[in-house]
Amino acid sequence: MSVLVIGTGLIGTSIALALRERTDATVWLADADASAAKLAADMGGGRQHAGEHADIAIMAVPPETVAVVLADAQARGLADVYTDVASVKQLPVTLARAAGCDLTSYVPGHPLAGREKHGPAAARADLFLGRTWALCPLAETSPEAVAGVTALAEACGAETVCTDPSTHDRWVALTSHAPHLVAAAMASRLEHADSQALDLAGQGVRDVTRIAAGDTALWTQILSANAGPVAEVIDAVAADLAQAARLLADGEGQKVAELLDGGRAGVQRIPGKHGWQQRDLTTVQVVIRDQPGELARLFNAAGAAGVNIEDIRIEHSPGLPVGVAELSVRQAEAPALLTALTAGGWPVRNS
Amino acid sequence: MSVLVIGTGLIGTSIALALRERTDATVWLADADASAAKLAADMGGGRQHAGEHADIAIMAVPPETVAVVLADAQARGLADVYTDVASVKQLPVTLARAAGCDLTSYVPGHPLAGREKHGPAAARADLFLGRTWALCPLAETSPEAVAGVTALAEACGAETVCTDPSTHDRWVALTSHAPHLVAAAMASRLEHADSQALDLAGQGVRDVTRIAAGDTALWTQILSANAGPVAEVIDAVAADLAQAARLLADGEGQKVAELLDGGRAGVQRIPGKHGWQQRDLTTVQVVIRDQPGELARLFNAAGAAGVNIEDIRIEHSPGLPVGVAELSVRQAEAPALLTALTAGGWPVRNS
Repeated sequence: MSVLVIGTGLIGTSIALALRERTDATVWLADADASAAKLAADMGGGRQHAGEHADIAIMAVPPETVAVVLADAQARGLADVYTDVASVKQLPVTLARAAGCDLTSYVPGHPLAGREKHGPAAARADLFLGRTWALCPLAETSPEAVAGVTALAEACGAETVCTDPSTHDRWVALTSHAPHLVAAAMASRLEHADSQALDLAGQGVRDVTRIAAGDTALWTQILSANAGPVAEVIDAVAADLAQAARLLADGEGQKVAELLDGGRAGVQRIPGKHGWQQRDLTTVQVVIRDQPGELARLFNAAGAAGVNIEDIRIEHSPGLPVGVAELSVRQAEAPALLTALTAGGWPVRNS
Repeated sequence: MSVLVIGTGLIGTSIALALRERTDATVWLADADASAAKLAADMGGGRQHAGEHADIAIMAVPPETVAVVLADAQARGLADVYTDVASVKQLPVTLARAAGCDLTSYVPGHPLAGREKHGPAAARADLFLGRTWALCPLAETSPEAVAGVTALAEACGAETVCTDPSTHDRWVALTSHAPHLVAAAMASRLEHADSQALDLAGQGVRDVTRIAAGDTALWTQILSANAGPVAEVIDAVAADLAQAARLLADGEGQKVAELLDGGRAGVQRIPGKHGWQQRDLTTVQVVIRDQPGELARLFNAAGAAGVNIEDIRIEHSPGLPVGVAELSVRQAEAPALLTALTAGGWPVRNS
């Protein structure tokens, strides 16, 4: 397999590194900024492109640029099959169609594996391990093109999910874009709050608002490119919150139970690790001291008991050198963990 | 110091256990359900109350019950000083005033240390370690009463913050109650979503919606008891989201940047562990394999390098036995951690 990566930012370079580490594919690198392509090559991502023909060209460029790059690449006959990695799919597809691109060889794609940092220097060969990689073949797209890009995604360690562009955009609006705006709207309420009020902040508000720390310019771009589906979701969230506010103000607070029940049902539908539902996991709470090696001792004890800790969350204790670690384990393994940690002198509790 | 705990649920029993473990206070236990008081006593929380007079009586009962219990306790002369632990403060104070209670001996209080479980069996002596304990003395409250309850909170390991009841209620509306409703409103959008859409769920939506898994009956009660301040916050959040939806639908997506900037500013105001701001911490990302002992090895390596891991977040890789652990450490300690983990063979990255 030979692959041309057009756009050696974080995603493009990570794909190059993944292919070079996991396959014997030939990888060529191209970028409008030649120094970015050179850096990706120096990192081991492949060789700088000098016009060679590739089996697959990956356009790792912004959503609004995909169609222009595709039209140009097809005019130059750079590859047999083309795919992109933009986080929205309707916009590049609409533009490609309008630009008269050949759609039989184009497989719109989206690996769900962004990170906070950008540029080739932030790239990682393991970026796609275990991640979902959405493919949105069009009516015109040939089965051979889909097979080629599917193989590429799997070669990077990802699992593919197929759907159409507009469904994809509604899905990411719901699971990524709308949650970002909701977090921002809650977090912005804290901007001018009393600083003493913020001393009362616990783990809950920290979790709800964490992703609001993301880059404004990047997210403005993402949200604008998926404006319709995002607007639909946050409009519904806004309506639910406005109604809850009315119920509370009118002394009918007991009626917010319906929204709370809907929230519980929604959370439970999010798949857990390895597809387990959250209800299959239980939480063991342990009081830990804030000192080097404390977590190591804790995990040693768990490992010695043969228990795999599926997730961990640490609740901070502002001002004091202790905290509570919440360890998620399979229910069947909780008794062994409780026994092991109790024997090690940790105050534990299975909630 | 002698203390009477009225209401031996989670909070009341935890206070009893904390006092018994950390002080030489005499603790008496009372509950409308005698078996609950007996269980708390059996757990080592003290002796069942038989009419003795205490220095301080703690009313660990629901918000709407505080005033009734206070009036009764004062009529029987059970203590010199009274405090409660309800998570809202305006409601019990208003009811106590209406019931003609003696307010000079009453210090409304709220330890910010709830847990998911209830009842004496879930109690822990360390529940208040490093937590904030809000006190809301009234104009009538005597300085001696405030000093007594402050000493009690500190004896339990908490740090006190003083304010008035209505300010307290606005603070917890902002930092706890509104975030819960916002999480529920976002999560409820997932209730009827395509299950394939949920396969695209990443860490962001998981964090935003996590607390929406809470108990509906409990949260309906909490939200109703603090209806006004909660309604005010979520009304503002709803308005911001509705406006963002309008901007997106009108093709003015670039204007959501203002809300995103407000969100970033808000998140940065949440105090970190030990009062550090989040910006003093940096994140090191490590690829880990999903097997017993893997995290132990990781923490051993960090501990051996003298690095204290302040927080850890594990990103799941659905379907594959790898994940990415994000370790928060002080910026000055990141180089030592990167060196230690690289030497141990882990793929690492400092973001």
